[in-house]
Amino acid sequence: MKLYDGGRAPNPRRVRIFLAEKGIQVPTVPVDMARREHQGEAITRLNPLQRLPILELDDGTVITESVAICRYFEEQSPEPALFGRDALTRARVEMWQRRIEFGLFIPVSAAFRHLHPAMKGWEVPQVPAWGEASKSKATEFLRFLDGELAGRPFIAGDEFSIADITGFVAVQFMKPARIDVPEELVHARRWYGEMASRPSAGA
Amino acid sequence: MKLYDGGRAPNPRRVRIFLAEKGIQVPTVPVDMARREHQGEAITRLNPLQRLPILELDDGTVITESVAICRYFEEQSPEPALFGRDALTRARVEMWQRRIEFGLFIPVSAAFRHLHPAMKGWEVPQVPAWGEASKSKATEFLRFLDGELAGRPFIAGDEFSIADITGFVAVQFMKPARIDVPEELVHARRWYGEMASRPSAGA
Repeated sequence: MKLYDGGRAPNPRRVRIFLAEKGIQVPTVPVDMARREHQGEAITRLNPLQRLPILELDDGTVITESVAICRYFEEQSPEPALFGRDALTRARVEMWQRRIEFGLFIPVSAAFRHLHPAMKGWEVPQVPAWGEASKSKATEFLRFLDGELAGRPFIAGDEFSIADITGFVAVQFMKPARIDVPEELVHARRWYGEMASRPSAGA
Repeated sequence: MKLYDGGRAPNPRRVRIFLAEKGIQVPTVPVDMARREHQGEAITRLNPLQRLPILELDDGTVITESVAICRYFEEQSPEPALFGRDALTRARVEMWQRRIEFGLFIPVSAAFRHLHPAMKGWEVPQVPAWGEASKSKATEFLRFLDGELAGRPFIAGDEFSIADITGFVAVQFMKPARIDVPEELVHARRWYGEMASRPSAGA
């Protein structure tokens, strides 16, 4: 199998961190998004939506979407369980994964794409008013998350899960998106520090 | 258990259709979103994000997010499998579920929330330029989906899955969002007609 990787962009990072946590090594094909290689013929043939990462299995089967790729590896190598272990924990991980995506990951991405000068020509049209509204939504959600993290070590409960990976990448992405993490959110900051100190954080 | 339901809104509908496909009956508590009951004290205590639907288990455990609620029932009652049956089909369902959500469901919702006069005071601030951009994104994605559906009966492959439910609800939501389904998208129209004729469509 081959993983077509997209470097520092948030979604490729989610998959690399997931694989590092699982201890799985996959041959990687680097794709230079800055040079728009993901919009070239080879990648478009694999994923007409021109998004990365892409997993190509040995029989040519293609899986796109970072969370779908992660789920494929979870099914193949269940331990450590990063999507939950039973009906209830699987539902809780899914719940938090989605809360983090819709409340934080997507708003941070929208702020970056609609406000950052480097995204002109990538996000067409850039709508700065939507970028600003998204900044506020991200900060508001982070306050909610801070309260939740006051009572437990990880986003979805007592165990590290894919929701922590999504949250970690989203908070890290706040820097290029130029959104501050308010100083007083001590629980979110404690959690972020712990995520950043895991060996997988450099993946 | 109790399902706090939100009527005609897209996310509550996704869960009701899923349950109908599974043949599962769950006691339901109607919540009138038009009267903003979901922003009242009772619902906010269950879900501080004030979103519906919400599943409350007999021990008081709360699961929010429609797909997380669906996954809980999938784990409890695996047949018929609506999230896939093995590593590969589960990954494919997840991939298509996410493509449909990001490519169609979210853009259609954004068009509705940012352009419809009835959403003033609900989506704050309304950003009409983002609503218009989202309309174009939804139509563009539907063209891609039409090409995919030329070659298979269901969105994720040969079997009906949760991705079809998400797609069906999203296309239905295009009407209040005032986005036309282009006449020439005959494969998408064939698929939509089949979804609309399933007994679950009225749930």
